[in-house]
Amino acid sequence: MEAELIAEFRRRIPSHPLVRVGPGDDAAVLRMAEIDECAVTVDLLTDGVDFHLAEVDPRRVGRKALAVNLSDLAAMAARPVAAVVALALPRRDGLRLALELFEGMVPLAERFSLAIAGGDVNSWDGPLALSVTLLGAVTPRGPLRRGGARPGDRILVTGAFGGSILGHHFDFTPRVDEALLLAERYELHAGIDVSDGLSVDLGHVVEESGLGAVLDLDAVPIAPAAEQLARQRADGSTGLDHALHDGEDFELILAAPPDEARRIVADQPLDVPIADVGQFIAEPGLWQTDRAAGRRPLAARGWQHEFE
Amino acid sequence: MEAELIAEFRRRIPSHPLVRVGPGDDAAVLRMAEIDECAVTVDLLTDGVDFHLAEVDPRRVGRKALAVNLSDLAAMAARPVAAVVALALPRRDGLRLALELFEGMVPLAERFSLAIAGGDVNSWDGPLALSVTLLGAVTPRGPLRRGGARPGDRILVTGAFGGSILGHHFDFTPRVDEALLLAERYELHAGIDVSDGLSVDLGHVVEESGLGAVLDLDAVPIAPAAEQLARQRADGSTGLDHALHDGEDFELILAAPPDEARRIVADQPLDVPIADVGQFIAEPGLWQTDRAAGRRPLAARGWQHEFE
Repeated sequence: MEAELIAEFRRRIPSHPLVRVGPGDDAAVLRMAEIDECAVTVDLLTDGVDFHLAEVDPRRVGRKALAVNLSDLAAMAARPVAAVVALALPRRDGLRLALELFEGMVPLAERFSLAIAGGDVNSWDGPLALSVTLLGAVTPRGPLRRGGARPGDRILVTGAFGGSILGHHFDFTPRVDEALLLAERYELHAGIDVSDGLSVDLGHVVEESGLGAVLDLDAVPIAPAAEQLARQRADGSTGLDHALHDGEDFELILAAPPDEARRIVADQPLDVPIADVGQFIAEPGLWQTDRAAGRRPLAARGWQHEFE
Repeated sequence: MEAELIAEFRRRIPSHPLVRVGPGDDAAVLRMAEIDECAVTVDLLTDGVDFHLAEVDPRRVGRKALAVNLSDLAAMAARPVAAVVALALPRRDGLRLALELFEGMVPLAERFSLAIAGGDVNSWDGPLALSVTLLGAVTPRGPLRRGGARPGDRILVTGAFGGSILGHHFDFTPRVDEALLLAERYELHAGIDVSDGLSVDLGHVVEESGLGAVLDLDAVPIAPAAEQLARQRADGSTGLDHALHDGEDFELILAAPPDEARRIVADQPLDVPIADVGQFIAEPGLWQTDRAAGRRPLAARGWQHEFE
């Protein structure tokens, strides 16, 4: 029953110094006196779209629900503070499922000093749907935004791209620490996390910044999973195609002035590689270039929710 | 398409002084410098449980999704600040549906100076599910909690109870202004909003406060809808039964010291009546009493999510 589940959560949820009122009241209460600007993000994940519950351990689903939101905070260079979680659980085995989702969240929450402050538990006749809302503290340098790139800025990316459907979309580490370190030490103009795909999300930065971008295909880091997926699919697509257009890499795309970008790439200050993959330009549009051919349009293809 | 919908939301969402970054980035950013303690609440509503989409205007569903969360902030005597909304939309007509849900939220958000700061839009093969997360500012008197009632405190309630299924559960006004006014002018020890039912939610206060309560049945305000529902159902249940055990009244139950309770009831400082319906006692348990019979146990019956 719902009441027993809530009681169980209250026993299991670790305490956190910023949480004045935790689960079990009508709302959680957080101490925010030190926080001038608060980043808020929500992602709702559903069975059949973001995961297939019949094929995956619910702990990985719980972990992913938290991780995709952490990735959104990383994109803004905000420090994670607290989460609230809402569950629409199938009636059958819903209690067990809820606890397993929760077990998948706790280690990641602890890893990022994130409070699980509250939530809402529901049963229904539909499939599993879960939403996580995260609150983060914007650092004194302000939020990193999509719309801040300037002509001449270099395009930097963390990690490698493509093939995340083979497992990375469950097991990725959100680039929170990386974003905070970069934003503190270097001048960054814009940022986004890659959830829809490298080309699409670069397109978002370009659009919000009111300019264009040229992506250097030879420089795009291709994940081994992208090559593996290209071989498996055997549909003529290459590892590079998957790197450009697969979703859910959850790496960062950043805009930095040329000198600063050169310094970042030379320093390699992160545990994960950071690469220069092109340049923002004044002329609108998305472009690709490589040794073999000159500059030509790049189609932004990736994940988008479709309606009838 | 998702992108067009987000663009439409960005055109329509009113600006708000506390929102530094609104919809369209990876996270919203709110100015929180004036807010020491932040109340956070989330409610996820689903088709078939909280509403039947086939039978109701989606605008009323959108309004309800916001209103139930506002009611949670009222229960804590917190001032509404901002909302983020996540939608899992059926593919068929999902875009139209999203805009209608939104149209139902905007007037209520404006009524309570609430920013709609961001959200997440998804399509899937399941029925409509929507989650709203609300942030509120706790007032200098601190959050009103479930666990603060003391033996001897009077039980106060706003409004009237029962029969909300006939329409009130869509059209109620969350008691935000009432809670803020009462918390500012009077000494209150505990509070909760009635979402699961008067008996169940009084039970929550009793349990969290570690005491008991005696409800005076003759004093419980019975809504006309409760009497109407009793007549319609013709199953032997009375208007009082519906007042005690129906859910979704979204009125407030408050604990106040006897002198203060007397003053509140005499003052009637709200647009809605406030009534004294009983007393908190040291002895644990829920009790009922009336002119006809003496004190006897009161079963806490109301809405609870069930699992198999």
